[in-house]
Amino acid sequence: MSDASLLEASYDYSDPRDARRAIRTGAMKGNTAGIAPGYTQGNLAILPADLALDFMRYCQRNPKPCPLIGVSETGDPALPGLGRDIDIRTDIPSYNVYRNGELDETVTDIRHLWRDDFVAFILGCSYSFEQALVSEGVPLRHLDEDLTVSMYRTSLETSPAGAFSGGMVVSMRPMTAARAIRAVEVTARFPHTHGTPVHLGDPAQIGISDIDSPDWGDATRIEDGEIPVFWACGVTPQNAIRMARPEICITHKPGCMLISDVPSAYDARLD
Amino acid sequence: MSDASLLEASYDYSDPRDARRAIRTGAMKGNTAGIAPGYTQGNLAILPADLALDFMRYCQRNPKPCPLIGVSETGDPALPGLGRDIDIRTDIPSYNVYRNGELDETVTDIRHLWRDDFVAFILGCSYSFEQALVSEGVPLRHLDEDLTVSMYRTSLETSPAGAFSGGMVVSMRPMTAARAIRAVEVTARFPHTHGTPVHLGDPAQIGISDIDSPDWGDATRIEDGEIPVFWACGVTPQNAIRMARPEICITHKPGCMLISDVPSAYDARLD
Repeated sequence: MSDASLLEASYDYSDPRDARRAIRTGAMKGNTAGIAPGYTQGNLAILPADLALDFMRYCQRNPKPCPLIGVSETGDPALPGLGRDIDIRTDIPSYNVYRNGELDETVTDIRHLWRDDFVAFILGCSYSFEQALVSEGVPLRHLDEDLTVSMYRTSLETSPAGAFSGGMVVSMRPMTAARAIRAVEVTARFPHTHGTPVHLGDPAQIGISDIDSPDWGDATRIEDGEIPVFWACGVTPQNAIRMARPEICITHKPGCMLISDVPSAYDARLD
Repeated sequence: MSDASLLEASYDYSDPRDARRAIRTGAMKGNTAGIAPGYTQGNLAILPADLALDFMRYCQRNPKPCPLIGVSETGDPALPGLGRDIDIRTDIPSYNVYRNGELDETVTDIRHLWRDDFVAFILGCSYSFEQALVSEGVPLRHLDEDLTVSMYRTSLETSPAGAFSGGMVVSMRPMTAARAIRAVEVTARFPHTHGTPVHLGDPAQIGISDIDSPDWGDATRIEDGEIPVFWACGVTPQNAIRMARPEICITHKPGCMLISDVPSAYDARLD
């Protein structure tokens, strides 16, 4: 889950500002899971301004897979609403640079790539609601077994906007019916980290033919008396961007998120 | 409240599609309060595309005063997410046309003004949550007394985006403390129509010096044992737009909103 055992001792990784300093200086280049627990982490997508309005429309129309929690000014790498000192060019451990929809390079700093027409988008991720579920009595098997959550393509279509479109990708967490009900209650409080599930029960109803063969992540065992519960997943906008084949797009490397100063429990503040 | 008694009998004004047909043909030009009860109504702002990204950022950063529920494609007057047949150039009873921040004309149709670079924004309004409050046991005095809700400038600042900035405008509804608590519960379900209050109690704490002298609307009597409860108000983005002095901006005439096909109780669907 976490690279915490490998971290330099000179930073306090429970503090989001100190964690970002460690990332900014290059002392911390790894996975952000387990870092600054209790603070919202976000996915990154940087696009040129000529695609930014369409991408914002795509997020507005598809808030469950694309919960927008921050947008930079054009050409400005700051995101003061998420943390006063944030410089999005340096504050993510590792970046993927896509050119014309293809992964071109992975870097730890994008100051040399930054342009006056770049807009940075931060999208909420499931990390916040998973912490809430666990602390409210809904254990999550993929966390207990140190697996990557199971993710699937579905037959659910997103609402298109300009060049952005495509099917919804979902993550799946198995649980009892009683815990599924509790999970809906808990995640209703987190609209900015995918919110309530999009489906539960029969995978075929959303076009998933083999629940044991996820399209991304690891397979998760479903025990007797459990049902699969499906949430909209942040891979959805990543696919939509890739299909749009922008001349350039920069994202976080999976698992290497932006750590914000916004407490996870304060989702409503973003609302 | 409503012009329903003056309406042509050939349309079913309880049906949002039929109400829009009446508006589109010019049979209905008045206030939309009381029309198609139970369906979400929205405020309109049309801006040229070169301001649209900044305005979307302003809404993203200020979701309580600016709850975005629909955005058109550039140059396209359709809003299929809010109603399949909507043509925003004809489907609002009356439009205000602002040029360089000043009201220039009021018209009932904007087909002759529409441009290829126009983007239409629809923002949720308090109408939906007021219906929910009343039906859940929180009476609202301005409705009972047929007054326009009291609105005030405050010392609360919005988060700026590009040319858009300014103070938050709030609406005020007096109620007992017990009903204020209930009102928070109920409006928490309506994030797309301003959501929960921004303040309750002492008006001075948000820079309101005289509660009996609202800046817009009518004064509302506050009885013994009641406290004022304040919600973010849709006048906030209208002021922000006016201050930005766009070359052209078209809004609904106050009270003459877009009637959508989205049931008010389904706020969560937009979410």
